[in-house]
Amino acid sequence: MDKFTEKTLHSERVYTGRIIDVDLVDIELPDGRKAKREVVRHGNAVAVLARRPDGKFVFVKQYRKAAEEALVEVIAGGLEKGEDPEAGARRETAEETGYDVQSIRFLTTIICTPGYCEERIHVYFAEITGEPHAQDQDPDENVFPVVLSAAEVEDAIRAGTIFDSKTLSAWACYRLMAD
Amino acid sequence: MDKFTEKTLHSERVYTGRIIDVDLVDIELPDGRKAKREVVRHGNAVAVLARRPDGKFVFVKQYRKAAEEALVEVIAGGLEKGEDPEAGARRETAEETGYDVQSIRFLTTIICTPGYCEERIHVYFAEITGEPHAQDQDPDENVFPVVLSAAEVEDAIRAGTIFDSKTLSAWACYRLMAD
Repeated sequence: MDKFTEKTLHSERVYTGRIIDVDLVDIELPDGRKAKREVVRHGNAVAVLARRPDGKFVFVKQYRKAAEEALVEVIAGGLEKGEDPEAGARRETAEETGYDVQSIRFLTTIICTPGYCEERIHVYFAEITGEPHAQDQDPDENVFPVVLSAAEVEDAIRAGTIFDSKTLSAWACYRLMAD
Repeated sequence: MDKFTEKTLHSERVYTGRIIDVDLVDIELPDGRKAKREVVRHGNAVAVLARRPDGKFVFVKQYRKAAEEALVEVIAGGLEKGEDPEAGARRETAEETGYDVQSIRFLTTIICTPGYCEERIHVYFAEITGEPHAQDQDPDENVFPVVLSAAEVEDAIRAGTIFDSKTLSAWACYRLMAD
């Protein structure tokens, strides 16, 4: 038997929420031991590292209740039902920053919290237009664009002021694949 | 009023689980609009990018039920109650891989899912011993060490076979701060 598997014996929905649900899953390990896994169900999302013609990057800053502080992050958002990820990446870029995507490239698909949440985020690198139009935010969001040079991004990572994992992941991929 | 804040009006525990709890929080935005935020409560953790004297890195591979596949990740685990993060990083390294830490350096503290989970992960770079002793795993885990060169790590990131966000974040920080 594959040593890397956890067979589902039983799964029970223990919480049904607004943006997440929680399942409690009884599993069997390859050697027959049994255990329980708590799994947060959440739809997939997209993230976009966006670069302007002047070489600067556009991030978004917003208060994150779960963190109890404002974070600087790559553009990101949940996919709509049935939405193509690349189309979602273009949509989120325009909505959150007002910049349009001129060209876009898939970098990778990450999982942020594999210990207990299924959500995957498709990460893109986009070249965007130079001038933004108006943002089109969700009604319960307050998202503000932040424009940084590559050196400023890396200084902020070193200083710990950019510390969101999808943003650091996007930067690692950009440096390896798109720089 | 600070444009980056979400004042808590009321918080209700809507799910009490094994490794996570969920709160539903009524908040007020700076302009007076009200909204609800779902917040997963989870303790903090540590992650360790570990390098052997031969220059290779030791990761761990394990089946992740939430992902329904086996992932290669940096060494990581939850902090015990009151545990110093650096001590936790040393402990997790020994438990998950059998290698002891010789020197250790703090890189950053990341947040993996700021949209709905409070967990923060303290990320370290460690120089480890050349020869492992026996692992000391948690009883419901099956964790296997994976040894990779820096080039193999970067090939795996490009190929999308290493795609855990704390692992990519640790790699970004290593390249910027410890390489």
